[in-house]
Amino acid sequence: MPKYYFEDFSVGQVAEYGPRRVSREEIIAFAAQFDPQPMHLDEEAARHSMLGGLAASGWHTCALMMRMITDGFLLEAASMGAPGIDEVKWLRPMRPGDVLTVRGTVQSVRASQTKLDRGFVGFLYEVFNERDERLMTLTCPQMLLRRNSGAAA
Amino acid sequence: MPKYYFEDFSVGQVAEYGPRRVSREEIIAFAAQFDPQPMHLDEEAARHSMLGGLAASGWHTCALMMRMITDGFLLEAASMGAPGIDEVKWLRPMRPGDVLTVRGTVQSVRASQTKLDRGFVGFLYEVFNERDERLMTLTCPQMLLRRNSGAAA
Repeated sequence: MPKYYFEDFSVGQVAEYGPRRVSREEIIAFAAQFDPQPMHLDEEAARHSMLGGLAASGWHTCALMMRMITDGFLLEAASMGAPGIDEVKWLRPMRPGDVLTVRGTVQSVRASQTKLDRGFVGFLYEVFNERDERLMTLTCPQMLLRRNSGAAA
Repeated sequence: MPKYYFEDFSVGQVAEYGPRRVSREEIIAFAAQFDPQPMHLDEEAARHSMLGGLAASGWHTCALMMRMITDGFLLEAASMGAPGIDEVKWLRPMRPGDVLTVRGTVQSVRASQTKLDRGFVGFLYEVFNERDERLMTLTCPQMLLRRNSGAAA
């Protein structure tokens, strides 16, 4: 049985996930597979780019954030997935050796008007490195079952 | 030297990238690494979920789209990266065996008012499978150098 349902979230709630260290090898492996631009693959090329040194694909930061919130609470939640993402801002590059934490803040809660078994929780996720520099912000609606809705998660 | 600069994009331009086949193995491998929810990992669990069968993480669709546009034009463009993503909509699940194409449409072009060497091109990307079902839409601003700006890409 899931531990968290729609009713367990309220505006202003804050939770932290992580830490998660990012290695040079995984930055390069992700980029080689999904975003093979020189500044994500090669230190020398990256040094001459506007990033000034090897930096991860922004999509890699998204993917690691997803893993951290999945381990952090989603696997224990009556999640029905997300219809999409409202906004992503890549504020600073993610570098080899960065140690990530994610702060999740509930920005809105809204019961569905048409499907009575579920509701939407609007999250702001902020990704920080170990120097408390904010690397990324992301807002997205999470669909969750209501408690005692009768439906299986 | 890059082939494409800011000036090479105009509103209404359309380009297609792909095709790219997605295997069951890579769907599971991505999910195991970044989004280990049962409906992305296990056929039996997925059959009993709202997705009705194994489906990729939405982030996997994003990552494959990134690879397709990188190969499609970004590696030949005077790209300065993207400050973020305006919106992602996951419309249908990406399934094992799907053959993806991406259609990119230029929605806006805007020269920077403060940095005269660059401009922003607003793209709408739509990801389709081989049945022409639209799986995802994504809008994002791409920063590009202007031709003859004197700066290196």
